[in-house]
Amino acid sequence: MQLLPKAVRQLIESFERLPGIGPKSAQRLVFYLLHNPEHELATFANRLLALKRETVLCTQCHSVSEKDPCHFCADQNRDQAVLCIVEEPLDTVAIENSGTFHGLYHVLHGSIQPLNNIGPDQLFLYDMSKRLDGIEEIILATNPTMEGEATALFIVEYLKKQMGDEHLPKITRIGHGLPVGADIEYADGVTLKRALEGRRAF
Amino acid sequence: MQLLPKAVRQLIESFERLPGIGPKSAQRLVFYLLHNPEHELATFANRLLALKRETVLCTQCHSVSEKDPCHFCADQNRDQAVLCIVEEPLDTVAIENSGTFHGLYHVLHGSIQPLNNIGPDQLFLYDMSKRLDGIEEIILATNPTMEGEATALFIVEYLKKQMGDEHLPKITRIGHGLPVGADIEYADGVTLKRALEGRRAF
Repeated sequence: MQLLPKAVRQLIESFERLPGIGPKSAQRLVFYLLHNPEHELATFANRLLALKRETVLCTQCHSVSEKDPCHFCADQNRDQAVLCIVEEPLDTVAIENSGTFHGLYHVLHGSIQPLNNIGPDQLFLYDMSKRLDGIEEIILATNPTMEGEATALFIVEYLKKQMGDEHLPKITRIGHGLPVGADIEYADGVTLKRALEGRRAF
Repeated sequence: MQLLPKAVRQLIESFERLPGIGPKSAQRLVFYLLHNPEHELATFANRLLALKRETVLCTQCHSVSEKDPCHFCADQNRDQAVLCIVEEPLDTVAIENSGTFHGLYHVLHGSIQPLNNIGPDQLFLYDMSKRLDGIEEIILATNPTMEGEATALFIVEYLKKQMGDEHLPKITRIGHGLPVGADIEYADGVTLKRALEGRRAF
């Protein structure tokens, strides 16, 4: 790699740090960019600089936004009585695209991962309690992974301790089961178990 | 996607343009970068800007370099009688890393691809003839693909026309056959044919 110019090596290094991009992919990307006109590289560079400068985390729901409060929190037409708790900002986009949810969001920015030293203090978890006035339902939409389940469980325990069992709003968990288009033959046992537990009247 | 801030959407768009990065990967990369400190984004941006500003194409061999002539062309200790013709700058790195070649390079910056409107005029091909004084062997190290073979064939024809059969230096093609670690059982027919044709005394 010493054979490559320093500018090339350094950019390869920057690309290598991105998740899912290995040394070979990084090399290919940089040599692809070398064939691009300089103004396109400048556009790319400016957009990188703008990323954090022109976005904020909403102080209420912590989703990534241009304004604070974000358009979810500022929109009075949304159902102010339902709060959907998700792990990442992109989860709100996925749920919005499904077109079935019109309430408020709360973005944790991760899940509890003891092995990676991520506990509830590293997430936007405790400040959820400030937003519970008038909330009638909390939907726990963390990922159906080990970490997501643990986080959901932790939130329920935390809210119980915080508000007491009698003042607790309705708490629901997004449905688990077979994704649309899946094949029962190839489904794993845990998913099938959840799908049977979550069966509904036809 | 309208739900995301403009700065986020634009950076996703820039990443999407890179080869091998689809919309979902681009989203993941941008949200990963959102969690990075601002100075790391600035470093990344500066490296993008530096890429073309701090590199040049060597006017002799056309490899990517910090200086012109590049360190290959400037190095008088290299064998000035052997010229290795490759498609891309990264090919010189791969060949250098093999540690078996000590001659000069010539980088075409692509291969002849009639379907993509890339002919010899779009490559650094014709100016090769200016470099043939004192060259005793030309190694055609274009890729063993349809396009690479066609390019190699074209170069031979071009050199024959240019220099006449009698003045032509020795022209060789890199060996084709089974890569080290491969399994004969799974090798394709063309590769096996080339491997048998290219067999050597044991």
